[in-house]
Amino acid sequence: MDNMEDNIKCVTCTAPVNIAVIKYWGKRDEELVLPVNSSVSVTLDQAQLRAKTTVMASPSFPNDRMWLNGKEQSMDSKRIQNLLNEIKQWRKEKHNGDTCTDGLLMWKVHICSENNFPTAAGLASSAAGYACLAYSLAKLYNVEGDLSAIARRGSGSACRSMYGGFVEWDMGSQEDGSDSVSRQIASENHWPELRVLLLVVSDQQKSMGSTEGMQATLKTSQLMDRRIQCVPESVEKIKEAILKKDFKTFAEITMKDSNQFHAVCLDSCPPIFYLTDVSKQIIQLVHAFNSSCGITKVAYTFDAGPNACLYLLEEDVGRVLSLICHFFPPDKDDLNTFVQGLQTPSISPLKKDVSFISLPVQRGAIQYVIHTQSGPGPSILQDPAQSLLQADGFPNS
Amino acid sequence: MDNMEDNIKCVTCTAPVNIAVIKYWGKRDEELVLPVNSSVSVTLDQAQLRAKTTVMASPSFPNDRMWLNGKEQSMDSKRIQNLLNEIKQWRKEKHNGDTCTDGLLMWKVHICSENNFPTAAGLASSAAGYACLAYSLAKLYNVEGDLSAIARRGSGSACRSMYGGFVEWDMGSQEDGSDSVSRQIASENHWPELRVLLLVVSDQQKSMGSTEGMQATLKTSQLMDRRIQCVPESVEKIKEAILKKDFKTFAEITMKDSNQFHAVCLDSCPPIFYLTDVSKQIIQLVHAFNSSCGITKVAYTFDAGPNACLYLLEEDVGRVLSLICHFFPPDKDDLNTFVQGLQTPSISPLKKDVSFISLPVQRGAIQYVIHTQSGPGPSILQDPAQSLLQADGFPNS
Repeated sequence: MDNMEDNIKCVTCTAPVNIAVIKYWGKRDEELVLPVNSSVSVTLDQAQLRAKTTVMASPSFPNDRMWLNGKEQSMDSKRIQNLLNEIKQWRKEKHNGDTCTDGLLMWKVHICSENNFPTAAGLASSAAGYACLAYSLAKLYNVEGDLSAIARRGSGSACRSMYGGFVEWDMGSQEDGSDSVSRQIASENHWPELRVLLLVVSDQQKSMGSTEGMQATLKTSQLMDRRIQCVPESVEKIKEAILKKDFKTFAEITMKDSNQFHAVCLDSCPPIFYLTDVSKQIIQLVHAFNSSCGITKVAYTFDAGPNACLYLLEEDVGRVLSLICHFFPPDKDDLNTFVQGLQTPSISPLKKDVSFISLPVQRGAIQYVIHTQSGPGPSILQDPAQSLLQADGFPNS
Repeated sequence: MDNMEDNIKCVTCTAPVNIAVIKYWGKRDEELVLPVNSSVSVTLDQAQLRAKTTVMASPSFPNDRMWLNGKEQSMDSKRIQNLLNEIKQWRKEKHNGDTCTDGLLMWKVHICSENNFPTAAGLASSAAGYACLAYSLAKLYNVEGDLSAIARRGSGSACRSMYGGFVEWDMGSQEDGSDSVSRQIASENHWPELRVLLLVVSDQQKSMGSTEGMQATLKTSQLMDRRIQCVPESVEKIKEAILKKDFKTFAEITMKDSNQFHAVCLDSCPPIFYLTDVSKQIIQLVHAFNSSCGITKVAYTFDAGPNACLYLLEEDVGRVLSLICHFFPPDKDDLNTFVQGLQTPSISPLKKDVSFISLPVQRGAIQYVIHTQSGPGPSILQDPAQSLLQADGFPNS
């Protein structure tokens, strides 16, 4: 973990993306990032989607500096500062130290982070990023504790990326947020048959950021208080469905919660739209397919953007991917780059599936598909060659 | 009203379209067509949009028959039958007659109805049609009473087309529906400055019918009960705004109710979508324009389809139409047929309006615009030349 030289400390870690099945939307405390309802998510495999962060502290650094996906960013962000200060506070408490006697607390830090997927695609990159930053800084400052509370200060949903598998972020009830932490419901090995297809929609329209969006909903939606009343029951039911590996219940609650989240967005004033016509066609395809099967085989969920996340079982991946390729064929007929990630069986769409589903073919509407699964939480990379910062504290490239 | 020959009775009437500002969505009694909430609407001028219906009774007709927009339709529809039976019942009660002694009740009827606008455009044609049928049949059978209760049996929202101007459909509380009737809030002369722009969207995608849709929402939306709780306050506030001609309040409640209605549709399972990307762009244009004016000058509302209905004041029509023509120019550059209805001032879009609004130009997305205003309720046409049925009881064309 320590660098060759005694007066430099350097740590590199990775952290996963998570996709909520019960959505987080609305804060009861903006400063502490405390939510108005608990949420539940699936942590995705880092082989397909992960953030990687190197943090370095050195007495030779005149300032704190940060690079994100190759570009230097301001460290003035309140979220970054809150997170950094919280970790330093933990170190002070642990070591009874202070910034005058504890060298490490006096040194400035350099942070370099990058994703192995396009940030602009709207794939929950901030959750992975802040989870990775919290984890890396905790290792750097050698502190232990519930890091989900630290990651939460960066970005609410980041706290769910601190664990692998299936994770609940308990909203908590304490005013200081001390019990607003995430917990693992089941590990990434619990339900190995579960698969995830991320459909990255081509036309990423500019839409309202989630921080601003959730404030607007909480302030203006008359239906929001009813949603908040409904969530606890959904959380209990989906946790039970996950533990029982009851796909039907898991899928139905997931879809219902996604739609309810987008409903309260639409009920905001002015209304907030994240779903596009393409999102809607994906929703219709899923319902038509489930209906043709006579059983719920696929679930969709949409975050604050048009991309779909589909949950399904391994045995249905080929059939569903064939349908996606049939109704949303890529602009360039290269199915190899269209479907990325885990190996996928090659199947032509079943004639009966296609004939049952009366939807138009939308060429080029989906940019690419990532086939993935549930995976573990953050981890530290011991190999110094993995560092994103050179010995001088500046990015590699 | 009577035809030349004693053994034929014939009546021709017209009735208007109405556009709700507080939406009707959900029945507490399917058979009696009783709603779960009261609703409020503006009746539109028949010069632009109206249904016209001729009803004829004759001892020589072997069967009841009906033609709608030139095509013969089955009379088996439960709605038509309910409406016809209810009117006949009124006549029996009024005249102490029965089908054996009252000639008119024994005779079969021919019904012919047509709209002066495209039925497929999704412009509340069924409300105008059933209102016109109820009104025509009441004249034919010479009965009087609250015809809104009769029209309601055909199509709920038809009861609001029984009056001109601003109309409330009171949900009522009686189990038999006797108090679920509409009432005029203010006449069509009350607020002469108010204007209506109907934006008919080009791509009329097939979507769920409102009867089926409202059943699904009532059965599956968790947010719907909250909406039902919210509506009474909105109804009271918008009635007050109408009486005071308080455009800002009228507009804000109208938009909020439209969005809430579409939110509970989205919260249904499977979700119901009526708004398209074009609808969304219209909504964004209205909010951006209001925001650039620093005051709410335009309101939108959407029924069970993608078309927008904009409410605004006469003084702003030119400026708003210019913006619509700028952001949604017609496919063929013929602005004369693009904007129909009332005369409109010709104004180029103000540079500052256009520069403030960062939306893409969507050529051809809006098919045409109808400029209209509030107008009176149904009326009878005395001129026999207006009849849609010839003396032999068959359609003119």
